[in-house]
Amino acid sequence: MTSLDDLPLRPELRGRSPYGAPQLPARYRLNTNENPHPLPPALLADLGAALATAARELNRYPDRDALELRSDLAAYLGRTGGATIAREQVWAANGSNEVLQQVLQTFGGSGRTALGFTPSYSMHPIIAAGTGTAWVDGHRRPDFGIDPAAAAAQVREVAPDVVFVTSPNNPTGTAVPLDTVCELYDATSGVVVVDEAYAEFARAGTASALTLLPGRPRLVVSRTMSKAFGMAGLRLGYLAADPAVVDALQLVRLPYHLSSLTQAAARTALAHTDALLATVDAVRAERDRIVAALPGLGLTSVPSDANFVLFGRFADAPAAWRALLEHDVLVRDVGLPGWLRVTAGTTEETEAFLTALGEVAPEHRTTEGG
Amino acid sequence: MTSLDDLPLRPELRGRSPYGAPQLPARYRLNTNENPHPLPPALLADLGAALATAARELNRYPDRDALELRSDLAAYLGRTGGATIAREQVWAANGSNEVLQQVLQTFGGSGRTALGFTPSYSMHPIIAAGTGTAWVDGHRRPDFGIDPAAAAAQVREVAPDVVFVTSPNNPTGTAVPLDTVCELYDATSGVVVVDEAYAEFARAGTASALTLLPGRPRLVVSRTMSKAFGMAGLRLGYLAADPAVVDALQLVRLPYHLSSLTQAAARTALAHTDALLATVDAVRAERDRIVAALPGLGLTSVPSDANFVLFGRFADAPAAWRALLEHDVLVRDVGLPGWLRVTAGTTEETEAFLTALGEVAPEHRTTEGG
Repeated sequence: MTSLDDLPLRPELRGRSPYGAPQLPARYRLNTNENPHPLPPALLADLGAALATAARELNRYPDRDALELRSDLAAYLGRTGGATIAREQVWAANGSNEVLQQVLQTFGGSGRTALGFTPSYSMHPIIAAGTGTAWVDGHRRPDFGIDPAAAAAQVREVAPDVVFVTSPNNPTGTAVPLDTVCELYDATSGVVVVDEAYAEFARAGTASALTLLPGRPRLVVSRTMSKAFGMAGLRLGYLAADPAVVDALQLVRLPYHLSSLTQAAARTALAHTDALLATVDAVRAERDRIVAALPGLGLTSVPSDANFVLFGRFADAPAAWRALLEHDVLVRDVGLPGWLRVTAGTTEETEAFLTALGEVAPEHRTTEGG
Repeated sequence: MTSLDDLPLRPELRGRSPYGAPQLPARYRLNTNENPHPLPPALLADLGAALATAARELNRYPDRDALELRSDLAAYLGRTGGATIAREQVWAANGSNEVLQQVLQTFGGSGRTALGFTPSYSMHPIIAAGTGTAWVDGHRRPDFGIDPAAAAAQVREVAPDVVFVTSPNNPTGTAVPLDTVCELYDATSGVVVVDEAYAEFARAGTASALTLLPGRPRLVVSRTMSKAFGMAGLRLGYLAADPAVVDALQLVRLPYHLSSLTQAAARTALAHTDALLATVDAVRAERDRIVAALPGLGLTSVPSDANFVLFGRFADAPAAWRALLEHDVLVRDVGLPGWLRVTAGTTEETEAFLTALGEVAPEHRTTEGG
């Protein structure tokens, strides 16, 4: 049998494993930040009709530029993001992973460098590697916050071509102040990508980096329909930026990358924005309930603007992860010593999680101070 | 207003234009090798039901490994390709463009070289550029065939990491003999990709490179559902290769790259394989009719195993292209002096095309000999 070592693989791929959360059976799957709320019946009815209509034209290539979808996304951002966004400023692809890959193919690549403040979304360095872009870990404070002056100094020193700022950050949960984004933008002549996959879950008063776009042609704000919109299975990520950035991305995008079905389903979901975002408030309430319950269990969390909570601290996080799984609750071990990440979902999920955690915490929480 | 020149674009992207056939209004659009036959009503009914069912789970991530779809694709290849193919040998992505991009990210990339025999599918060098892979044009004979000995010699000299063989070739139309594929495979230690996007249209007796897979772990055969299956809007490309190649691709694939809707629709279409492939025979008959009619117009063609015909020769192909467009027939100017490419579709389209060509040919055909 042929093994990977027998193939002429790129040398940097040797010994690597594919990315992905373990797909394990568990009654409560709180490990991938999905939205557990079923889609509203009215949306399902409209999706059925829209997809059946789109199916009739499946023998034709889709709109290569996804013009109508991009108009709808621009309208959504304009309505909720605190900024006026034109269709020419919006680009969409199969998940924000593909959007970010296109950004790196355009502005990164071989001989270029990306910097992101780790711990953060673990796909950023993986997509960088996949595009031949060198990666530098940016520094965070021990509380996982970004120190603006120190971060800007590091950016000036490294001079990366692409800077990633995840806000709210994944897996830690906290949004990044816009002042910090501005300082980083001013510290680089490269592209600054603010990954706002979880923006809709932010606590009240958290402004989007969309408001920073005017006058900043090197700023990119990426979003997704996987989280707040509850459409993880659709694979629809998008970004807003200067129209010139969108023009540039079209030099590397694979033609007809977005299927007719994807475009039709995304447009249908956007027409139901209000009903879909109604679940966001419910999820935020569960998140805040988890946060509030942790001290009673001798645990703590990182302030969360997302649909998940980084909680701890544990003497041995992998052991605590296994103990929770034995209680049928699958959370995510994101590799941060002492911490685990749990997705906030339905009330029933929160109950199950907190009950299991009540069993697990006494044995597994750290007894160290501070 | 910001221009592309104001952005920190990768230097090799400067001055480039996005790929894509001109999207022009015309009654007869015979420029992108789509299948003009409407999808069968029974398939549309099943698609509607399958997509509505898949929509109910859209809040969950799709099967990251697309296991059921890959089983169905393997069964299809086994039934039609003349070779037994296991699920572990099959990989799928959003169009064969993404499949090929993943192959190049795995086996090409910066510091590596791909070679393809031009003229061929113009996305091959573009995807190579997008992945930082250097590109070398392989030589063809004046009749657009590949001379096996000369091609193998060139491969030995260039020592590319990835060799592309398009069979049937696009835009010229002719399938490549398997002996040639074998000679090229033996001439390289790199990966050989046989792009069989149009394989189902090949003339009787044309064997697929799938039959060459046993014992050739560096051989990759790519396919698509855009052409014979008439599902260009679905964006489903796939490949068959040694299981180790499929394992390797999972190191670069973006997680959850294939949406739940794509997986459901592709599986439904595969369940209607016989009905869909019934259009293939009709398209082949139209293709052969076009080929047969050309000499009567003082024109000729390259032997075609595809759903298109490269026809000529013209004194000025762009002028002939414009003249056909004035007759409401949109064909493809693929940049080969003297030649144009037309998609074979319905009988009505063939009539319209041949009638328009009858008007255009006398003025535009070349008067040179040979």
